This record gives sequence, structure tokens and C-alpha cells, in this order.
Amino acid sequence: MNFYTRKWVKPEDLNAHGTLFGGRLLAWIDEEAAIYTIIQLGTNRCVTKYMSEINFINSAKQGDIIELGIKAIHFGRTSLTLACQVRNKITHKTILTIDKIVFVSVDEHGTPVPHGKTEITYTDERLREH
Amino acid sequence: MNFYTRKWVKPEDLNAHGTLFGGRLLAWIDEEAAIYTIIQLGTNRCVTKYMSEINFINSAKQGDIIELGIKAIHFGRTSLTLACQVRNKITHKTILTIDKIVFVSVDEHGTPVPHGKTEITYTDERLREH
Amino acid sequence: MNFYTRKWVKPEDLNAHGTLFGGRLLAWIDEEAAIYTIIQLGTNRCVTKYMSEINFINSAKQGDIIELGIKAIHFGRTSLTLACQVRNKITHKTILTIDKIVFVSVDEHGTPVPHGKTEITYTDERLREH
Amino acid sequence: MNFYTRKWVKPEDLNAHGTLFGGRLLAWIDEEAAIYTIIQLGTNRCVTKYMSEINFINSAKQGDIIELGIKAIHFGRTSLTLACQVRNKITHKTILTIDKIVFVSVDEHGTPVPHGKTEITYTDERLREH
Amino acid sequence: MNFYTRKWVKPEDLNAHGTLFGGRLLAWIDEEAAIYTIIQLGTNRCVTKYMSEINFINSAKQGDIIELGIKAIHFGRTSLTLACQVRNKITHKTILTIDKIVFVSVDEHGTPVPHGKTEITYTDERLREH
Amino acid sequence: MNFYTRKWVKPEDLNAHGTLFGGRLLAWIDEEAAIYTIIQLGTNRCVTKYMSEINFINSAKQGDIIELGIKAIHFGRTSLTLACQVRNKITHKTILTIDKIVFVSVDEHGTPVPHGKTEITYTDERLREH
Repeated sequence: MNFYTRKWVKPEDLNAHGTLFGGRLLAWIDEEAAIYTIIQLGTNRCVTKYMSEINFINSAKQGDIIELGIKAIHFGRTSLTLACQVRNKITHKTILTIDKIVFVSVDEHGTPVPHGKTEITYTDERLREH
Repeated sequence: MNFYTRKWVKPEDLNAHGTLFGGRLLAWIDEEAAIYTIIQLGTNRCVTKYMSEINFINSAKQGDIIELGIKAIHFGRTSLTLACQVRNKITHKTILTIDKIVFVSVDEHGTPVPHGKTEITYTDERLREH
Repeated sequence: MNFYTRKWVKPEDLNAHGTLFGGRLLAWIDEEAAIYTIIQLGTNRCVTKYMSEINFINSAKQGDIIELGIKAIHFGRTSLTLACQVRNKITHKTILTIDKIVFVSVDEHGTPVPHGKTEITYTDERLREH
Repeated sequence: MNFYTRKWVKPEDLNAHGTLFGGRLLAWIDEEAAIYTIIQLGTNRCVTKYMSEINFINSAKQGDIIELGIKAIHFGRTSLTLACQVRNKITHKTILTIDKIVFVSVDEHGTPVPHGKTEITYTDERLREH
Repeated sequence: MNFYTRKWVKPEDLNAHGTLFGGRLLAWIDEEAAIYTIIQLGTNRCVTKYMSEINFINSAKQGDIIELGIKAIHFGRTSLTLACQVRNKITHKTILTIDKIVFVSVDEHGTPVPHGKTEITYTDERLREH
Repeated sequence: MNFYTRKWVKPEDLNAHGTLFGGRLLAWIDEEAAIYTIIQLGTNRCVTKYMSEINFINSAKQGDIIELGIKAIHFGRTSLTLACQVRNKITHKTILTIDKIVFVSVDEHGTPVPHGKTEITYTDERLREH
């Protein structure tokens, strides 16, 4: 699993207890998963259809740096299934895992359409080694 | 299931397609579920531990009014399990359902503690009939 | 008066004193009143025209749950007048009251148009008893 | 009346009709009035107590520049009363007026305390002429 | 240099250290500079092209009031160059300075076009003396 | 230069022209640079001191995915100097470059203190190859 996007937990991200607001975290994940999907499928037209169960394992506090990891695990005809892990960037302690997030490629009316992809496009990762 | 909190979908709530951003919706749900839990358990010290799978059934668009429904379905010793449904306020079309959201009552160190509640406190709802 | 929407006061909602920012509260009220109006008038085309005087009776602090109550008090030909009360959900202490908030139904050019309603539509409230 | 703070209406400030969200405007006014009060009273400890009726005269749309005008009109023993006008910076058309916004100087327990001021402090304005 | 827009540093504006988040400050400056440019050039079609080096001289903390000063220093054929200073409104200590911010007037395709202005339009400032 | 954090340009990120608001972009960069610095220096106590000139080369529009690249270019005794490039994730067109962003490690009073680091810590990048 590759970890790209990082977040710095600021006061605006806290719940009323002073720890990272779970809803904020879910919003970050949904955006990161959408970005991953758009890059893989090469289209902006894709919508979240399903998330499998979510385990909130550890919380995060103000000042923590967290990183979001996403990995494609299955290419359907019109769908793409991702796995997600969020962890503390410094301690690597897992904050949350989601086994499956399913996006579907749609046309302009919202009807599922084949996306034509069958595997992860590594181009970008390769470029980064150099 | 009772529906309390309503949201009016504004430009700040949209994703890059111009429909309701799924992450925003999840944030709204997490806050509403926390509020419901705090009211039922009578304590501010409770944290989200688990969400069962989430089905995104219909989307919403700018100008839609949506309402969030939460219902307590199980009182554990230290936990409270809720069900959630989000729907369009006008058409009553379901936008999203979550079968189980589990909150846990914790002490100041984050350790689960018994919350002492065994059933839904209806006081507030009764008052509203008059 | 019915109380629907609830808010959980989080750090992002505070003023520089650490209490609920009055401007945030006014924004919440304006949205809730607009939602109420849209539901009653059955149209999205309605604009805030007037608010009567506002008394800030008690403040709220981080972690408080507040609820917003709105009630239709007069149906004009093109307008709808609402009353508003905001209170602490747990203690029921009043935070703020506004005697009159007036919305006007408009056409696509912003000109007032008759909305054709003369009384509160209770449908939704009735459904909730079951 | 002096006009200081300006706002550029952006998509995040719009309601679901695509015009300036009234609640956002009220939040801007409350912040500007608090700033004016803090400067005049020389203390950060002051809270909004009252707003007189609000007339929404004209709306604003994306791309408009608006400016907020505040003027002290009465110094009480523990209070300060302000008048407010919001207008379009380019056309000078009035968007909203509020005759009276009352702030009260308080101690650390929220009890009103005398602020010791009896007139507008012009120092800052004078400096600006040079 | 004239100082117009003021900001009250609230919890939502803080970084994870509890001081004013530098990125928030830069966002405020960019908006204020755009507003100044639109007023001077009389057109909404202008884009930020360049900022000279930025010195963060002092920080700000929750509750501080800061004011943003902008001054036009050069009118090019298609561009306008501004200087910027941000300071604490009460202590007048400088928080940040930027020697040059360049905006360019563009047509609907983003191509630079002459703006036809050669000097600061003082109209608005004159009006304010009365 | 490594590119980690990605952003999906949503309506809330747009200026009044409907393109990416420059101030939002600067806020994203400042957060990403702070995150990079905290990871390299191993301390949360570091503040932005300086940014060299900024060239806004291309703009971005709603739906674009952009990625933020940061690279350490000089380790001083108390400072760390970074370079930054922001580009469109899909087209790789450069949106903005900043040659130098300087952070300083400080103690609890804000006084610069040696950070003890002299080179980039690659640990994290190495882990990612496996």
C-alpha cells in the first residue's frame, strides 16, 4: 500500500473532546479514494457506491501528522475496489482501516459504464523512483 | 427511526462533479450519531469505534434538503449501537444507510467504562408531542 | 415549537474567547429557517427579508449540544413568518430567541410571487409519531 | 460610518440558490462588530447581547465585493451600541442595515463590568490620513 | 499604505501549535489583494501572477486582531503591482511584509489585456473623510 | 522531488472566477511544507520564516487533481530550507514553483534552537519501495 496524502491535525479538525473528529477523517478518506480512482480510471466521472465496515482503532490528536494509504484490489467492469489504511506518520500506529471502498464509473446520467481498465497503472510510481 | 437534523446542500458541500461530496455526508452522519449518543448516555465522553458497511444508494444535488435519521438498536455494557438512514426530506428517497454505528463510553484515559443505560430515553420525544 | 436540527459545538465554531461564535450561530439559524420555509412553501425560491430583534440570552461552550426550534407563525400572500428559539439540548436553557424571521417567495427575477399556502403542513410531523 | 473590512463573494459563501448565503453575511457582521468593539473598549472580553431588527435590502452574487461599515452610536457604562451597514463596494447599493448591535464588557465569569470609555477613539483614523 | 480589512484570530485559524496558521494568513492576503485590484482596475478578470519574497516577522495568537494593508505601487499596461503589510491592529507590530504582488488583467481566455489605468483611484478614500 | 499530498479541486476551493483560489493553494503549500519539516526535524516546534518569490504559472479548475512536491535543499543549524513545486497530477503541467521556503526550529518561547539534523531522512521513502 502506498501512502501519499498527509494531513496535519489542526484545531479546525477536532471534535468537542479535542481529538480528531471522526467525520473529518472520513471526509479525508473519501476524497483521497476518489483521487486514486480518478487517476487509475482516467475519468472524473466516478462515484462512491460502497464502503465495507470501518474500524476506528486509534485516535489522533492536535499536532499529529497522519497519512492516508489507498490500494486498488479489484478491477470490475464498471467498478474499482480499493483498500484503505490510515496511520500516524511518525509512529506508524494504525488509526483506521477499511477493507473495501467501491467506486463506479458512470456516464453523464449516472448510469454505470465500463471503464476499460484491468490493472494498476504504475507509471506515476515508477517516475518517482528517479 | 426519528429524523432530526436537516441539511441544505450548498456549493461548499459539493464534490468536483457538482453533487453532494460523500465525505461531507459521512462527516454529517458522524456528528449526528455522536450527538444522539451523548444525549442517550448522558456523557460527552464517547468515541466512534465501528461502522458497518455503507451503501450509497442515491446522490443529492445542490439545493436538496436531506435529513439524518438515527436510532439506538442495542445497549451494551460500555457501548451503544445505532442504525442510520439518510434521505431526501422532500422525496423521502433513501440516500444512504448504515446498519450499525458503535460508540463506546470511555473514561479520561480512553478506557471503556460502563455507561449504565439499558434503553432509549424517550423523555425528549414525549415532550415534543405537546 | 418543534426542535429538529442539532449542533455539537466544536473548536471550529468558537470565537476567540473560546465560546460559541455568535456569527456561527446566526448562520445555523438562517440555514434552518430556510430549510423550514422550503419544506412549508414547497419551493426552493425563497429569500430572507427580515429578522426582528435578537436577544443573546446565554452563551454555549465547546462540547455543548444545542437544538434549533422554528415555528411558522403567519402565512402572508408572498411571505412566511417564523419564530425561532435556540436552546441547550441537555439543560433546555434558552440561548437565543428571534420573534420574527420573514421569508419571501420569489420568481426567477427575485420578484415576490404568491406561494399559495395558508397553513402549516403537518404531514411530516404526523408520520413521525408512528 | 467608516467601511473597513471587505469580502469577495466566493462559491463557498453561496446558498443553494447561488446568491450570498444570509447566514454567512451575518457571521461576517458579527465578527466585524466584535473587532470594532475590542478596538474601542481596549478589551477582548466583550460579548454580543442584542441586535435590533435586520432588513435584507439587496442580495449579492458571486464575484461581488462587499464592505462592512460599523459606527459606535452610544457608550453605556458596561455596553457599547453600534450601527451597521453593509453595501456593495462598487455600486454602493445597500445590502443590509442593522440599527443597533449591543456588546457588553464582561469579566472572566461573564458578569458585566464597566469599560470606562465614553467616546470613539479616533487615534487610528487620524494616523491613516498621513 | 491604507489598512482596511481586519481579521479576528479564532480557533479555526490556528495551526497545530496554537498560533495563526501561516497558510490562512496567505489566503487572507491573496483575497485582500484581489479585492484591491478589482476595485482599482474596475474589472473582475484579474489573476495573481507573482509574489516577491515573504518575511514572516512576528506571529499572531488566538484573540489577536490583525489588519491587512495593501498599496498599489506600479501600474503596468496589463499588470498592477501591489505592496502588502500585515500588522497587529492594537500593537502595530508587523506580522508579515510582501514587497510586490503582481496581478494581471486577462480576457475570457486568460490572455493578458490592457487595463487602461495609470494611477490609484482615490475616490473612495476621499469619500471616507466626510 | 517527491510528490505526496494530492488535492481534488472542489467548489469550496474556487475564487469568484471559478478557478482555484490562489490563497487556498498557498494554504495547502504551507501545511505540506510544515508536515515535511516536522517529519525531517522530528519536532513539532517549527515555524515558517521566509518564502522566496512565487510564480503562478498555470491555474487549475474544478475537478483537477493537483499534487504538491517538497524537497529539502539545505539544512542550517536551526533552519531547514525547502523547494516546492505544485503540478497537475494528470498533465504534469506546473502550476506554481517556490525556490525556497525556510522553516526554523524553535523552543517553547519561539527562540530558534539547533535541530541537530544534517541530511534528509530517507527511511520512509525506502520503506515504500517494498
